[in-house]
Amino acid sequence: MALVVQKYGGSSVASAERIRRVAERIVETKRAGNDVVVVVSAMGDTTDELLDLAQQVCPSPPAREMDMLLTSGERISNSLVAMAIHAFGEEARSFTGSQAGVITTGAHGNAKIIDVTPGRVRDALDEGSIVLVAGFQGVSQDSKDVTTLGRGGSDTTAVALAAALNADVCEIYTDVDGIFSADPRIVSDAQKLDTVSFEEMLEMAACGAKVLMLRCVEYARRYNVPVHVRSSYTTKPGTMVSGSMEDIPVEEAILTGVAHDRSEAKVTVVGLPDVPGYAAKVFRAVADAEINIDMVLQNISKVETGKTDITFTLPKTDLAAAVEKLTALQAEIGFSEMLFNEEIGKVSLVGAGMKSHPGVTATFCETLAEAGINIDLISTSEIRISVLVKDSDLDDAVRAIHKAFDLGGAEEAVVHAGTGR
Amino acid sequence: MALVVQKYGGSSVASAERIRRVAERIVETKRAGNDVVVVVSAMGDTTDELLDLAQQVCPSPPAREMDMLLTSGERISNSLVAMAIHAFGEEARSFTGSQAGVITTGAHGNAKIIDVTPGRVRDALDEGSIVLVAGFQGVSQDSKDVTTLGRGGSDTTAVALAAALNADVCEIYTDVDGIFSADPRIVSDAQKLDTVSFEEMLEMAACGAKVLMLRCVEYARRYNVPVHVRSSYTTKPGTMVSGSMEDIPVEEAILTGVAHDRSEAKVTVVGLPDVPGYAAKVFRAVADAEINIDMVLQNISKVETGKTDITFTLPKTDLAAAVEKLTALQAEIGFSEMLFNEEIGKVSLVGAGMKSHPGVTATFCETLAEAGINIDLISTSEIRISVLVKDSDLDDAVRAIHKAFDLGGAEEAVVHAGTGR
Repeated sequence: MALVVQKYGGSSVASAERIRRVAERIVETKRAGNDVVVVVSAMGDTTDELLDLAQQVCPSPPAREMDMLLTSGERISNSLVAMAIHAFGEEARSFTGSQAGVITTGAHGNAKIIDVTPGRVRDALDEGSIVLVAGFQGVSQDSKDVTTLGRGGSDTTAVALAAALNADVCEIYTDVDGIFSADPRIVSDAQKLDTVSFEEMLEMAACGAKVLMLRCVEYARRYNVPVHVRSSYTTKPGTMVSGSMEDIPVEEAILTGVAHDRSEAKVTVVGLPDVPGYAAKVFRAVADAEINIDMVLQNISKVETGKTDITFTLPKTDLAAAVEKLTALQAEIGFSEMLFNEEIGKVSLVGAGMKSHPGVTATFCETLAEAGINIDLISTSEIRISVLVKDSDLDDAVRAIHKAFDLGGAEEAVVHAGTGR
Repeated sequence: MALVVQKYGGSSVASAERIRRVAERIVETKRAGNDVVVVVSAMGDTTDELLDLAQQVCPSPPAREMDMLLTSGERISNSLVAMAIHAFGEEARSFTGSQAGVITTGAHGNAKIIDVTPGRVRDALDEGSIVLVAGFQGVSQDSKDVTTLGRGGSDTTAVALAAALNADVCEIYTDVDGIFSADPRIVSDAQKLDTVSFEEMLEMAACGAKVLMLRCVEYARRYNVPVHVRSSYTTKPGTMVSGSMEDIPVEEAILTGVAHDRSEAKVTVVGLPDVPGYAAKVFRAVADAEINIDMVLQNISKVETGKTDITFTLPKTDLAAAVEKLTALQAEIGFSEMLFNEEIGKVSLVGAGMKSHPGVTATFCETLAEAGINIDLISTSEIRISVLVKDSDLDDAVRAIHKAFDLGGAEEAVVHAGTGR
């Protein structure tokens, strides 16, 4: 008997009608002969409404209480789905993250899963019940307080449960048909991918693809949980995220997709002494302000001055804090000025295929040049090329790259050796 | 340092504005030098809205899931109040019933408190925090599932916590000024009582007085927790429910108030053989249908027939079930017919004073006779007289009794020995 873990997001359970449809789907999965565990997010706008209520009573709510408040949302949706399943004639039991054994760090609002001990879930499954588990939450190992997991937390809950229960698959139900070769809202002939390796999905998530959060994909890869991203509106297969790119035969390795990201800003620290320790001071200052840096570039120093510039990107929402922090430390660190720019966008090409095919970088840059798009920065990994461009050029850049590498329509985007591309 | 337990009902926290006012009051109590534990019900209409949602997805929701759903309401209100307290500059932490150590039976929807082990509450108090505890809920000792406590559950939670923590007082905040000598909506000169003994409050609650539920008063009496019923809209003292009537000196014993109850129906089983065992069969049948009986009367049998009639009252909502059950067993039990009547009301006079003053019963019956109200049944205890009348006569009966015993206005209703009343 297979064990299937399913996750449904807030829009899938936004109303009583939608809840009944989700329950029907879950019951079908059970009646097909599977054990079923379901993770459900809070109904539609519930989380936003609760946040609003909180703001009305307290401008700066304590994080512990925010977690107590927000976790009510998932409790409500999971018990309602359990009831709806019952109305279809099947047994169902709902559990909070804590009851399901989701043990986390104590970082309220952004807790990380330490362990999952799903004894009560297993017992309920053995009794023939469908099991609902509230997503986005767990219990702190130290304080025993309830915690929430941050963005994408319900997906991570589902994958973590799938891993702990040795599930055969984790199905993430969403309102798109799967993972696409580019955002279909920007690229009209973007195609749904049938499969993606874990590493490629990691890169795409890191580069702005929004369907699965990075943390969730990392968890899936670490525990080798196949993740099937599919639409809750149809029964068509979606995209299966599974397997390591190491297992893809070289000749089959392809370029997978184009990701884009508008959420970042760029900071350049100019005229930093090119001496060991100075770059570290810059990054320590930013880290102390609890800001996550994405791309980092330091080019060679100017021979005449012995100074160098360091550029890095970070979330736009953290820009003000970073500027403030670095300005305060300017004298101590010793740079001459600081430039920053919010009007940037990042476009990335991801694919196992570029490992073994030289010329992809050249084609990438030529394509953008032909489109009249200036490249601000370039950063690459084994299976990814990312560039920063003006944010007003971002959509055109995505389309141009997607087309140049034949990622659209029915053709596979295979990079042919020897074409000099 | 005194320990005060406060309970606020749903209307007290029905909006962000009300929540802030409640928080302000709690902070004042803390700053007056007390340790404070607060039990809060769900915001205003939340419970009804959740019940409605449940009905939309499932006509007959499983009780376990209903408890998971409804307990979200208290979680929300308690964390919001904790946040509001924080905005006033004090520490506050909220706990679910389970986290606060409220251990119950497994009867979902109507669980009884078995024990309260408030270790985490005590620790938080010792750290200087105000503590919020979700009312109306606990955790089942056997299954470890979340349970709700039934009507008046938040009051019971507050009293149970007060007992377990050895609190100095349990303050029940409500939207009336305290316990009145009769329902002020029926009797215009009903007066607020300053004090009521536990036993008298028990009788009043049992006879229809709605401010405190019977179970809550029983708990307070058993653990000797003084309960201060007061208004959340003013700072005036309310009614202190405390002490045993045994401690009231005879000459000070008074009549306390008039309670009324419209929620019952009456059933008469006619022509039951007046032989041991038959009455028991009737009551066993009704008990098997899980119906609670209130008043029971059996008069002497008719000499010529050797048969007797038994009359009992029960909640109107259970009438159909009782009639069905007894009709099904008519042949087996052997009664000749069954009469029932929903249009009845119960009016009761309660007071320690009647123990030592003969004539109260006579005055009671004379008063109703003078008001042209027919008495259907009479039932008494040491400190209570209850009669059934036509429900259309109920308000007049309440007013007449209240007046006859001088319970209104500024005068105490002392029954003077020797007046022959």
